[in-house]
Formats: sequence, structure tokens, C-alpha cells
Amino acid sequence: MPVGFIKHNTIHTIAGVRLAAAAAGIRYQNRHDLVLMELAPGSCVAAVFTKNTFRAAPVELAIKHLAQAVPRYLIINSGNANAGVGAAGMQIALASTQAVADIMHVDAEQVMPFSTGVIGEQMDINRITQKLPELAQQLHVDGWQTAARAIMTTDTVEKVFSKTILLQGQAIHITGMAKGSGMIQPNMATMLAYVATDLKVDNEQLQAILDNSVEHSFNAITVDSDTSTNDACMLIATGAAELDFNQLSEQQQNAFVQAIDELMLLLAQSIVRDGEGASKFATVTVKNAASYQQAKRVAFSIANSPLVKTALAASDANWGRIMAAAGKVEDDTLHLNGVDLNINGVQILESSQLHESYVDEAGTEAMKAEEITIELDLKLGNDTKTVWTTDLTHEYVRINAEYRS
Amino acid sequence: MPVGFIKHNTIHTIAGVRLAAAAAGIRYQNRHDLVLMELAPGSCVAAVFTKNTFRAAPVELAIKHLAQAVPRYLIINSGNANAGVGAAGMQIALASTQAVADIMHVDAEQVMPFSTGVIGEQMDINRITQKLPELAQQLHVDGWQTAARAIMTTDTVEKVFSKTILLQGQAIHITGMAKGSGMIQPNMATMLAYVATDLKVDNEQLQAILDNSVEHSFNAITVDSDTSTNDACMLIATGAAELDFNQLSEQQQNAFVQAIDELMLLLAQSIVRDGEGASKFATVTVKNAASYQQAKRVAFSIANSPLVKTALAASDANWGRIMAAAGKVEDDTLHLNGVDLNINGVQILESSQLHESYVDEAGTEAMKAEEITIELDLKLGNDTKTVWTTDLTHEYVRINAEYRS
Repeated sequence: MPVGFIKHNTIHTIAGVRLAAAAAGIRYQNRHDLVLMELAPGSCVAAVFTKNTFRAAPVELAIKHLAQAVPRYLIINSGNANAGVGAAGMQIALASTQAVADIMHVDAEQVMPFSTGVIGEQMDINRITQKLPELAQQLHVDGWQTAARAIMTTDTVEKVFSKTILLQGQAIHITGMAKGSGMIQPNMATMLAYVATDLKVDNEQLQAILDNSVEHSFNAITVDSDTSTNDACMLIATGAAELDFNQLSEQQQNAFVQAIDELMLLLAQSIVRDGEGASKFATVTVKNAASYQQAKRVAFSIANSPLVKTALAASDANWGRIMAAAGKVEDDTLHLNGVDLNINGVQILESSQLHESYVDEAGTEAMKAEEITIELDLKLGNDTKTVWTTDLTHEYVRINAEYRS
Repeated sequence: MPVGFIKHNTIHTIAGVRLAAAAAGIRYQNRHDLVLMELAPGSCVAAVFTKNTFRAAPVELAIKHLAQAVPRYLIINSGNANAGVGAAGMQIALASTQAVADIMHVDAEQVMPFSTGVIGEQMDINRITQKLPELAQQLHVDGWQTAARAIMTTDTVEKVFSKTILLQGQAIHITGMAKGSGMIQPNMATMLAYVATDLKVDNEQLQAILDNSVEHSFNAITVDSDTSTNDACMLIATGAAELDFNQLSEQQQNAFVQAIDELMLLLAQSIVRDGEGASKFATVTVKNAASYQQAKRVAFSIANSPLVKTALAASDANWGRIMAAAGKVEDDTLHLNGVDLNINGVQILESSQLHESYVDEAGTEAMKAEEITIELDLKLGNDTKTVWTTDLTHEYVRINAEYRS
């Protein structure tokens, strides 16, 4: 079960976005695994994709189509990543977008394909095409929950959240879904995430909002340090609310951006909470670093250390491993001789010495919580970075020895 | 049990090096945990140390003493790393070198201290000093095996190897010992390694030989990507053989350097074979990279990927995870669209397409071996790098949830 995962009971529809899911039998039986998402004409779309060099064909094609046309449809499948199958991968991605275009009467360039699941197995295009008429018929503004469930792979829970913000007397909605549980250290975005709002925001503004938001949400999480071949994150503004971002005051714009950021973070954290085998949810904050990059490198070095992660699993306040993981970052401006270290508010180190009041029992007690905050104050500058991670458990090893991702 | 570990039955003594071990009860009971190593006057010594910023006090002091004087004694303890205990750590390191100096009638600067074991617990200096008379009495050229056992922590086997090389009709011996099993991605050297020869080699030559050798042995291994706070590797030339490196022909010098390299590699690989929880020993070779750094980064990215390592544990020829791990390296000159991939000689990818003769059964069969060679040919240039790693097993998680390193 995910750690500290709280479902949203109300998922707002986003006027201009309709979704449908079907059981195409791509890999899994008796469950939905194919999603069609429709965006109303005039929607603006921003996207970020995996920086993994070994990118899947649908990622390549989605990037190409987004550059050529305004997207109207997203076709998303789970169970097969359509990655690492050579030229056949692109043929399948092209065929699936063409099939959607034919049935929905748009250009193929207006369709973006997304796949997630096992790498290196060829996908049967017929499984997708034969379900398109059913999907086209079932498109509905209420489809978020069903779609979020359909895109899951090793996820144990669907990840879909909503926010509403009042701007100029009007309720603006933001709803997003994501999937991901393993092969998670996104480098642009996580496996798959789709966030939509009914506010009107132009492409350039939307991309800027997304880029900044991703840096502090999806690009700040790790389960196992492995960046996927299929990561993608989309931010969609349908404009159906007939309120324009440009009409907002600076304060209102900031409030909207903050709401997007909060929803993105909620989605990103939900992936960590549901991380493969996770029994803990850990927040690692590195404060007062000499630079943002230093803070980020040290935070990820701690968050990805197998020794820190096994200590988390064992509820062992093993600050020696935390410091060793921080220290292995190669950076001439990094000095660890005057740091403070806290775990869940229990101060362990003060100026790199054991705090006079610290006793092992206090550390062990603090580590028993499901949610652990590790705070390292470097006292070298003013930059701070927070990242989120899980522990490393027997269950992680079992899942990944059994599941073929 | 270590994977494919072959003991050397004959360990050559090195004239000019004497060793003794004792049970000081530093952490473990009923076993040796303290070693004194004596180097004859006139020995030359080269050393490399951890690049971890969070360095242990004995590492700091060993570096300082080596710069000040020619070492005559090494005092090495297991069970406690004397790391992360603030100013007390340096006091203990200083006191231990002074105590050795007093009893052996040398300067404190001629003594180098080394510690390995749990981080962040204060060491009792009396445990060490009270055993020094016993150690001084028992110094013996035959002490290598006993010493190698005494410096172990989570190691399951002592690591001590010997080589003999005939130079100008004279048998030149090289013997070395090492310890290490977890917190292993050395960045200079592994936890602790000591290699000695009776050839005469001056300091500068010795350091050059060591630096180059370490890059291709201890700096090319990983168990869990975690760099220790206490890594150190020493190369000692006693000169007792009365044959000088400078008297050798170029061919003979190369033969000697090669013998050192082979012994260092044997020691480094033995640490991986005995890696915490290891059930596989994997060799990862990246060929024809655009640069040496590219080859190294891609090789370590594969060797450290938790998803590749769990696939190794499961004997799953999961080449998709290998390619995803390669692709996550951020490098503009890295392209993976024309690579060949082999696992234990079974060709899986040719020009990034599944090889026409490849079937899953062949991959699974190849992966069942205890020793796995993963060979990725990038076809981008001429540089090659090989690194060694283990799988990630339930046993790794168990050891590190239970052992407080």
C-alpha cells in the first residue's frame, strides 16, 4: 500500500477535455490499458519529455507531432512501452496516430502517442485499432478516474488529483493524473503525467509554467535513480473558462501558477508514496548550500544511496551513511565540517559534532515514522533543494526480480 | 559465499614487511580486529585516499603524516571507522600513532593510522594501546593471512593474493590484501588495500604506478555506488630485493607494472565477488565510446542501476533496462541508435535492433551463469572501459538493514 496516500474524493471535470478507457489486452487481461484523451479545439499544450538518450518511438513521434500541429488527441497505452524494438516501434506509433486521426477526422499530426510498460517487446497494433471505435463513443468529461487507472503498470493505486482556484469570481479547475512506481528518477518528467486546466494560457506561458513546475516536482523525485525511456508530462489549457491568463493581475497569475505547482507536486509525491516496495516516504532537504546545483546534487546523493535507503527501511537513524552519501558528491566548494543534521526534528549533528542532547533512542524513535524528513544544513550559502524518495526494501527486490519492465 | 572466488594457496612474504594481528575487542568479540604493519627503513610508499568530502580522522592524519615523513608503521583497526565523531576522532588517531611511535621508537609522523567499520561511534583508544606490546612482539613476515582476516568487516572471506615475477633472473614478489564488501564505489581506492613488493621503486614512480593501476581496478568496481569515508590504498616497495626499477629494461618495467596491475585487479574484483549479498559477478564493458569518460559513465550507469542489478539477481536478460540505464547518462555525444549488445557472448542487439537469431530462451540461459559479461558496443569512437559489479539481492537489503555501517 502507498505510504500516506490520501485520495481526492472530488475530481473536477475540465471543460474541453474528454477521456475514455478500454481493455485492449495489450499485456494485461481483464483491465483497462488503453486511453483516448480529447482536447477541444483551441486548447494550448505544453510538454516535457524524458532526457534518456534511449527514447521510445512514441516519445520521438509525440515531440515531432507537437512541433507540427496543435494536438487534439492523445492515445496512451500501458503494458508495453513500445521502446527498443527498432524501426517497428515508429511504424506502430505512426499507425496508431493515423488510426485515431481517421476515426476522429483530424490530421495524424494532431494526435500524440504515449506508451508505458515492458521495454523491448513488439506491440500488436491491432489491439489498439480495434478498440478505437469503442473509445471514440465513450469519450466523456468524467473519464479522469478510469483513465488514471488504465495507465497504471506496477502502480498499486491510481493517481488523480484536482484543485479549484477562484480567479476574478470564477472557479478555475485544474485536474491531473500520473502513473509511475519504478524506473523513477525522471529527468524532465515522470513516466506519464497529464494536467489540464480550463483557464486560457498561451503556449509560451504554459511551457514556462510547466518547465518551472517540473523542476520542483517530477524532477525532484526518485524511487530507484533509473530514468525511464518513456517519461512525458503534459500541461493542457483548454481555455473553456473564457478567462485568459493575460487578464489576470500579477497576484492572480502567481496564485494560478502556485496551484499548478501544488497539483504537480501532489502527483509527483504520489509516485514516490507508491514507489515499488516503499514502506517509507522520505523528504530530503539540503539547506544553505553554496549553489542550487550543489544542494540538488547532495540531496539526490542522499536520496539515491542504497545504504541510506536500507537504513530507512530498518528505521535506523544511521546519520553516518547520510553524511557519507553527502560527502561522495565531487564538488570543491562542498565542506561538511560545520553542518547541522535533523531527522524528523530530532537534531543529531550540530556543527558536524553529535548534538549534546542526542541519544540513539531518540533517533530510532524518530525513524519509526512512515514519513521521514532529513534536513541537512550545509551553512555554505543560501540555496536550498528538497527531493523526495522511498526506502529500499525486500519488496523492491522481489517486484523487480519478477516484473519485466 | 563469494562468487567465483579462488584463494591463493601460496602467499609470498615480502622481505621488509612484517605484520601482526590481535583481538582488541573494538567491536567484535573473539576475533582479530587490530593490525600492525612494519615497513623496513628505506621503503618507499605511495597512497591514494577516498575523495569523499566527509573523510574520517585517520584518513586526514595518514595524508598529513605521509607528507611529513617516510612511513615505518601502519596501525589498522576494523569494527570502528573513527569517522564522524568530530574532534575526538583526530585525538584518537593522533594518540594511536603516538602510542605506536613510543613502543617502536620512531616519530609519530612515521606512523599511518587506518580504521574501518561503523561510522559515528567513538572509539576507545585503550583497546588499541593495550594491545600494542603484543603486536610489537608478534610482528612476522608471515602475517599477511592473519592481517587480511583481521581487517574484515562484512566481508565473508579474507582477500590476500600474491604474484611472483622473474626480473633479471631474480624472483620479485608482490603481495597484497584488501577488505571491503559494502559502501563500495571507491573513488581513489577501496575501503582498505595494502600491496607490497620487494623491488626498489622510488616514491614518484611508485605513485604513478599506483594512480594508473587504481583507475583500472579499485576505481572500476561498484557494489552499491556508495563511496566510503575511509577508503585508502597503499603501494609499498621495500627494496629488500636490491633490484631497482630504474635498472630494468623498458620491457621489464612494463612486466612489473603489469604484475602490479593484475594483483590490484584481483584484489578489487575479490571485493565485488564478496559484495554484500552478491549472487552474481558481472563485468560491464562499454566499447568504442566517443571518449574514455563517456565509456566510464555509461559503464557505471549500467553497473549501478538498481533495475539492472535486480534483473541480474533474477537471471533475466532484461536488455531494455540495460539500454535505459545507458541512455540516462546525460551526454550530447551519446547516441544509442546503432549499438551492439552481448550478454555472455549471446548477441541480443545488432545496430540497436533485436538480432535476427535472438530468442528470449538464449538470453535467459546465458543469464543463469554466476559470472555475467555485458558488452555494449557504442560504435561512436575508440574508447573502452570495463567495470565490475554485483547483483542486488534480498540478502543485500537484509545485511544493510541489520548491520550498522
